[in-house]
Amino acid sequence: MTQTIGHFINGSIIEDTARTQTVFNPSTGEAARKVALASKTTVEEAVAAAQAAFPAWRNTPPAKRARIMFRYKELLEQNREKICRLIGSEHGKIVHDAAGELQRGIENVEFACGAPNLLKGEYSKNVGPDIDSWSDFQPLGVVAGITPFNFPAMVPLWMFPLAIVCGNTFVLKPSERDPSAPLFLAQLLKEAGLPDGVMNVVNGDKEAVDTLLTDPRVQAVSFVGSTPIARYIYATATANGKRCQALGGAKNHAIVMPDADLDNVVNSLLGAAFGSSGERCMALSVAVAVGDETADRMIAGIKEGMKTMKVGAFSDESNHFGPLITAEHKAKVESYIDSAEQQGATIVVDGRNPEVPSELAKGFYLGGTLIDRVTPEMTSYQEEIFGPVLQVVRVKTMQEAMELINRHIYGNGTCIYTRDGEAARYFADNIPVGMVGINIPLPVPVSYHSFGGWKQSAFGDLGAYGPDGVRFYTRRKTVTQRWPTSEVREGAVFSMPTLG
Amino acid sequence: MTQTIGHFINGSIIEDTARTQTVFNPSTGEAARKVALASKTTVEEAVAAAQAAFPAWRNTPPAKRARIMFRYKELLEQNREKICRLIGSEHGKIVHDAAGELQRGIENVEFACGAPNLLKGEYSKNVGPDIDSWSDFQPLGVVAGITPFNFPAMVPLWMFPLAIVCGNTFVLKPSERDPSAPLFLAQLLKEAGLPDGVMNVVNGDKEAVDTLLTDPRVQAVSFVGSTPIARYIYATATANGKRCQALGGAKNHAIVMPDADLDNVVNSLLGAAFGSSGERCMALSVAVAVGDETADRMIAGIKEGMKTMKVGAFSDESNHFGPLITAEHKAKVESYIDSAEQQGATIVVDGRNPEVPSELAKGFYLGGTLIDRVTPEMTSYQEEIFGPVLQVVRVKTMQEAMELINRHIYGNGTCIYTRDGEAARYFADNIPVGMVGINIPLPVPVSYHSFGGWKQSAFGDLGAYGPDGVRFYTRRKTVTQRWPTSEVREGAVFSMPTLG
Amino acid sequence: MTQTIGHFINGSIIEDTARTQTVFNPSTGEAARKVALASKTTVEEAVAAAQAAFPAWRNTPPAKRARIMFRYKELLEQNREKICRLIGSEHGKIVHDAAGELQRGIENVEFACGAPNLLKGEYSKNVGPDIDSWSDFQPLGVVAGITPFNFPAMVPLWMFPLAIVCGNTFVLKPSERDPSAPLFLAQLLKEAGLPDGVMNVVNGDKEAVDTLLTDPRVQAVSFVGSTPIARYIYATATANGKRCQALGGAKNHAIVMPDADLDNVVNSLLGAAFGSSGERCMALSVAVAVGDETADRMIAGIKEGMKTMKVGAFSDESNHFGPLITAEHKAKVESYIDSAEQQGATIVVDGRNPEVPSELAKGFYLGGTLIDRVTPEMTSYQEEIFGPVLQVVRVKTMQEAMELINRHIYGNGTCIYTRDGEAARYFADNIPVGMVGINIPLPVPVSYHSFGGWKQSAFGDLGAYGPDGVRFYTRRKTVTQRWPTSEVREGAVFSMPTLG
Amino acid sequence: MTQTIGHFINGSIIEDTARTQTVFNPSTGEAARKVALASKTTVEEAVAAAQAAFPAWRNTPPAKRARIMFRYKELLEQNREKICRLIGSEHGKIVHDAAGELQRGIENVEFACGAPNLLKGEYSKNVGPDIDSWSDFQPLGVVAGITPFNFPAMVPLWMFPLAIVCGNTFVLKPSERDPSAPLFLAQLLKEAGLPDGVMNVVNGDKEAVDTLLTDPRVQAVSFVGSTPIARYIYATATANGKRCQALGGAKNHAIVMPDADLDNVVNSLLGAAFGSSGERCMALSVAVAVGDETADRMIAGIKEGMKTMKVGAFSDESNHFGPLITAEHKAKVESYIDSAEQQGATIVVDGRNPEVPSELAKGFYLGGTLIDRVTPEMTSYQEEIFGPVLQVVRVKTMQEAMELINRHIYGNGTCIYTRDGEAARYFADNIPVGMVGINIPLPVPVSYHSFGGWKQSAFGDLGAYGPDGVRFYTRRKTVTQRWPTSEVREGAVFSMPTLG
Repeated sequence: MTQTIGHFINGSIIEDTARTQTVFNPSTGEAARKVALASKTTVEEAVAAAQAAFPAWRNTPPAKRARIMFRYKELLEQNREKICRLIGSEHGKIVHDAAGELQRGIENVEFACGAPNLLKGEYSKNVGPDIDSWSDFQPLGVVAGITPFNFPAMVPLWMFPLAIVCGNTFVLKPSERDPSAPLFLAQLLKEAGLPDGVMNVVNGDKEAVDTLLTDPRVQAVSFVGSTPIARYIYATATANGKRCQALGGAKNHAIVMPDADLDNVVNSLLGAAFGSSGERCMALSVAVAVGDETADRMIAGIKEGMKTMKVGAFSDESNHFGPLITAEHKAKVESYIDSAEQQGATIVVDGRNPEVPSELAKGFYLGGTLIDRVTPEMTSYQEEIFGPVLQVVRVKTMQEAMELINRHIYGNGTCIYTRDGEAARYFADNIPVGMVGINIPLPVPVSYHSFGGWKQSAFGDLGAYGPDGVRFYTRRKTVTQRWPTSEVREGAVFSMPTLG
Repeated sequence: MTQTIGHFINGSIIEDTARTQTVFNPSTGEAARKVALASKTTVEEAVAAAQAAFPAWRNTPPAKRARIMFRYKELLEQNREKICRLIGSEHGKIVHDAAGELQRGIENVEFACGAPNLLKGEYSKNVGPDIDSWSDFQPLGVVAGITPFNFPAMVPLWMFPLAIVCGNTFVLKPSERDPSAPLFLAQLLKEAGLPDGVMNVVNGDKEAVDTLLTDPRVQAVSFVGSTPIARYIYATATANGKRCQALGGAKNHAIVMPDADLDNVVNSLLGAAFGSSGERCMALSVAVAVGDETADRMIAGIKEGMKTMKVGAFSDESNHFGPLITAEHKAKVESYIDSAEQQGATIVVDGRNPEVPSELAKGFYLGGTLIDRVTPEMTSYQEEIFGPVLQVVRVKTMQEAMELINRHIYGNGTCIYTRDGEAARYFADNIPVGMVGINIPLPVPVSYHSFGGWKQSAFGDLGAYGPDGVRFYTRRKTVTQRWPTSEVREGAVFSMPTLG
Repeated sequence: MTQTIGHFINGSIIEDTARTQTVFNPSTGEAARKVALASKTTVEEAVAAAQAAFPAWRNTPPAKRARIMFRYKELLEQNREKICRLIGSEHGKIVHDAAGELQRGIENVEFACGAPNLLKGEYSKNVGPDIDSWSDFQPLGVVAGITPFNFPAMVPLWMFPLAIVCGNTFVLKPSERDPSAPLFLAQLLKEAGLPDGVMNVVNGDKEAVDTLLTDPRVQAVSFVGSTPIARYIYATATANGKRCQALGGAKNHAIVMPDADLDNVVNSLLGAAFGSSGERCMALSVAVAVGDETADRMIAGIKEGMKTMKVGAFSDESNHFGPLITAEHKAKVESYIDSAEQQGATIVVDGRNPEVPSELAKGFYLGGTLIDRVTPEMTSYQEEIFGPVLQVVRVKTMQEAMELINRHIYGNGTCIYTRDGEAARYFADNIPVGMVGINIPLPVPVSYHSFGGWKQSAFGDLGAYGPDGVRFYTRRKTVTQRWPTSEVREGAVFSMPTLG
Repeated sequence: MTQTIGHFINGSIIEDTARTQTVFNPSTGEAARKVALASKTTVEEAVAAAQAAFPAWRNTPPAKRARIMFRYKELLEQNREKICRLIGSEHGKIVHDAAGELQRGIENVEFACGAPNLLKGEYSKNVGPDIDSWSDFQPLGVVAGITPFNFPAMVPLWMFPLAIVCGNTFVLKPSERDPSAPLFLAQLLKEAGLPDGVMNVVNGDKEAVDTLLTDPRVQAVSFVGSTPIARYIYATATANGKRCQALGGAKNHAIVMPDADLDNVVNSLLGAAFGSSGERCMALSVAVAVGDETADRMIAGIKEGMKTMKVGAFSDESNHFGPLITAEHKAKVESYIDSAEQQGATIVVDGRNPEVPSELAKGFYLGGTLIDRVTPEMTSYQEEIFGPVLQVVRVKTMQEAMELINRHIYGNGTCIYTRDGEAARYFADNIPVGMVGINIPLPVPVSYHSFGGWKQSAFGDLGAYGPDGVRFYTRRKTVTQRWPTSEVREGAVFSMPTLG
């Protein structure tokens, strides 16, 4: 455990090791590395580097900026395996899951390659007689991204490719739990030809975050994490006059209708509930079965499916999911299961104390857990668990199911399983949730649409990535122009009298 | 002075007169009416009415919502004279100026008539095999507008027509200085066919504002006013989890280049600096002359032009501008002139103690004032004056002029006078100001573009009205859909074999 | 029968009565008026008027052009009754149906009111270092519209409001069968404030059409009519170097699935098949029932519903539909029914020789006709009937139904009745038809989308009205701009050194 | 000269050598290869292959189609040198010029990579109560491209990447003068992973062209070439019911104003007039000097600049331009120079009989030629020369210069040299030319805008590549959807009553 992970500022790795924190390999429970925690000064250095790089980068034609992203996509694909191992070793997710995460991230880079077209402004001739007006979308300057542990590659890739291709310079503060992948992503940008200072990474904790939130040179903050922190980020950044988008927690429900294709329900819920140990803000954690018959058949199917589910180390491709991020988090998830049990729910499949090989005994493992007869009053229902736990709520009608979702404080994702066009349309239109699936349990928008929850799941008016991302990372400038006289144009007649 | 102006809630005028405040006729200085100041309870009643009206309004097809705006445009045009007199009698601006204000407001209604097209979402077939995804822009619910005294009709019209046509319901808190025009605007909406509760007006002060900022049913807040209040609104609304756009103050500079058409400069600056007594956030209050020769010629011209400028009562169409809004504000503007004088500037034309007919002697009048040799250190340069005062700063180069603008805390509007294509393009591209004029002193974007300053002139990521307004008043919902089996479609084959 | 309907050229009614043709009142069979048939010279006069009006109209700001459309909408609404009677008296459709037609037309005017936003071009800063580029959508000049008898108000309103608001000037050649309504529409434009010459109407026949198709001043031709003529128009206009969109005939099928809501099927098919006597290019003329059980139930329902259907004069609001357009056309529709009978189909309800009051005995009436067991080989299936005839084809599977549609030469509209999401999506995606309904029998796109068939139903690459209409009526101009030196901007430095 | 260049059909090189034609190396005048001229049968085979590949390709998600274009861009960059030599050896342009051509082509591939975003349709919820409608842009099927000799790589790259990424399959008929580069481009697509049959190349002459224009499976034709052929293509393709865009010839004028930066004028005109031997439809072939003084100074500068211009073999990077495409074309260009001389113009620099090394003596060389005092009546002014000939017309005023351009039959590109904002804006707005440069002599729009001339320079309503290209290669399908009852949704209530 000799390596200390530093920062990436102005094109170089910077070590600022006054304060450090341990980075674990969750699959084995071992402390694997240390990560430097940036001081205010170090963060300010990163901001200064970004600020210094801004004028030249801003003036670089968008097509040229985009060409670096084309090259970056190639490099990400060439380094796929390395990046997935970095993710897995610090986060614990299985490499095939890391590959899926990276692929989604690469798709954001693909979208960013379209910058010249995405940045087009609006042009109006003759807003008045001989007066023209156009709007241009200009970069903001230095923007910051603060990202969570659960997608150490994808969530940063939601942000910086688009911010950068729009002409901004960037300071990323990734999670200190799994900092290696994002750091490597930044280094690859340099290899792709990005000028020094345009992309910077600072590792750190609250000190780093607060510096970014208050430094007047930082123009905008994108955040993804839990709702309490999202609130803090949103309130603090805006109180400092910045624009801010802060994405928080979730409690994603699937309504299972009596006419649903139950094979599809079972297969897709297994992945959506337990994949990445449920540590996804789009994890499907509550299945709302309409009718007891639906519930019984669904639970039987899921129970059966869970028998073949395998939990273990990130590096073994045959595993379905890996450990949780930390021992503390594992304990917290277990406590939710305990509380459900105590509050009257039925533990159908109990993932507490899973069997793992002896060499993984200290890993932060929790098996897939299925809980039936959960009710809205239970703690495990009200809060986001962020673990491999699927809870079933039984209702009698679709309306009751929708009211359940309406009343929850979160509004990130949701889904309905049905084949009925009318039910699907009614649900999608009326449910106050930002991302809706119809027979799709994880309705994460593709990279050319935008990601955004409603209610307490997101703060700010523009979603992450896609068209909303472009708008967030640019500010509109409107020019109105009239040329006052035709002196030169008609004057040319008079200035040439001897030519007649 | 018997009339007390009430509120407009759920389609009716509500009187809540526990607390009131005097409304003056600034042209005569007389107290003309009282305005009720809404209690928290009254504001909550308005919010409740808006909340109750939301579900049905949200479900009204956009084309039908738009048709009410078509009718509203007709009514505004039919009531033009009445509205202008309401504006003039409480604000003081001359009726021809009020007519210009109203016309800009009507243009926002015209834009809102295009709602069915503006609200189009994005549709993607085959985001994956047989998976479709689309984004829909849905209304937020109850949204609030808080508007300033200086455009009692136009600024509300920037907000509510668009918010409403997008499917939201609205609570307007107009300025308590000139509340009659906005109240009448709301009443006309009812006449145009708007269902009760969709549009509500509460008059009031900080108590009303704070209720709107903290009530959890209010989803979004649009504000226009001074920068200190804009900051407060932005920080408070966002700390309460809302989306917010808060437009603040300005200090708009015009650069006058040596090659400018000086006749055009003089004529357009007179209107841009003194129109509406300079009580416009887009008023052109600083002329930066490049070169002393330019400055001397420009000042001579403006001085000459000012001789014909007439200040007086709002109702006399021959006046160029009217009184300031209050006696207090008049005193404040005078104090800026005093300070400039004390700090070394040259008062070229002194508007203090203007001559007015004896019947207007108590009106809040201040004449047009021209100050030369102003420098960046002076108080009158650093702060927004919001009065009929034009200050001249002399510089040697265009670069020096641009640096002056760069350094100012505001970034609302600016303008360059030149006929040189290169100078204009360099200026427009590089100046950190949101609205730029080229030979246009008041570059207010037309209604189908959007209004937004930079730096301390605006907080939030989306501008007012136009395309940004549509985006601000809607939230994106993304649906991803896959139909799981072809049971019915192909099943039809199997279920029909005996029919042959 | 003294009145002769003339032309509308350069703001005045022009009589050019060398050649005329009778206009009938189809409800009574009486010759009601005459219509002038324009000579080549008269058409050229109209083109010349349009050409002369172009430069000033082109330079009129789009917002001002749009304002005339706002006013025009008001006038159309005020003259609703008059227009509907003009339509009914010459076309024969019942006034409530004419009102529906007019309303759809007014919606196109509403869309045209959004011109300032719709005409926005694309602006790109820094396509290269300090090089900007933008695209502007400019009007074409004189454009022509040639429109059919079946929608004498709506189809012209698809064209000229949008063409005009985009800055073009227009020559309309409406159907000579029912010329009064379109002529009056043009006159109202003048009342709305449109400058003379911007809108012109010439009545006429092939001579007029050919003049428009070959005159080099005409830049573009929009046509709606039958496919053979559409082909001719498209080939001739393009051979003369013009842009052209030519919409032709149709044979619109509805697939009725076994899970369809049959009440809805029956009710909506009645209107879609027999409304306006089936003289609509979007009329639903073939119902494809999947399974005999579906067919039997559907036919029973339609037969029952047809009992209450009433045919008669245009002016009686209680009628469901009126006469056909001419005696010749009536005979042609009857011959299709005869042929179906002879070729083996079952005439379930026979509308030949309908009962009408004696005073209408000479009217061109044909009753609603329902034909079962129609097969693809029959003449009545292969050709467009354009009469109140609904034919039923029986198939065993949805796939068979789709293949039927695939094989037909037309591809205008189609519809499926089902409640199954998968079936609906599969159908909508795969069927090669331009306008698809899901449980909507007449899927005419709303005014802010665009109208366009596929296959032999339309020629050209852009649909009618909506966004495609805007693109059709404008041509892209792309400007690329670089200002070569900073002479003036930096020169200012050097020219001022002694001024310090 | 043993090699015969074949076709590329369904993923394989096909030899159909019944008829062949010689391909020359214009730099040496030697016959270098033969090219097969496809028979009708061979072309039909290509169309059949494209037709067969369409269903699967159409259903491939756009994101997956785009990913092949990402890979294609990499391959084009890796094969840059090879492609440039193929171009040079058959066309004659110097390899640095070929590299510029290829780069512009690659930029079209970059644009095509944005397909998932570019193909987004329009979605409208509630076009009526509970009725939704959306427009989808679907591929056409088999589309054909017919391309000219002068840009054997770039013009094909304008077409097929976009057509293919939109879901179409393609048949390219490149120029038979320089067929090797386009053939290789197609082969690289296969290497990039494109399924066989999606891209096909047939070499040939009129027989191949006519087959493509009349085959009913071909849905659309894109053409670039001379105006007489463009007319023929446009008329024939449309007479066969297809959509068509046909780009033709040009006569591009630059207006040189008295205030122009003459160094910039001279430098940029040299490249724009003589680059690629003037064999470019955007070549700047007429300089219109405003005032004799301007003309004299400009001519002096150009004459001086021409002294250093070097003409020679394609492979020598120090050459400025190479030979013309054929001996016949060289003779034709010379005849234009002769005619100008005979008709009274002044040959300032005479490029006839240029000096070249003896080994190039048979090459088709013509030196740069500058002609002064050209007038509108001269043949050399009226027709497109397509050779290294720059003609100067002298006028007295800008208005006269603009009228000259207005009167010419072509309207492809034009440019003004000035630093005056007003003159530039007036020119750009009013000149009836599709692509306008302001101090930019070759204003070819970037790949994310669209290319299109006006007047006789282009037929059809949509430009090449960019947003217009996307629209040209897709057809709009509009779906309108209503789900008829809430049976399943609310039915769930009634079917479950005993479950409580």
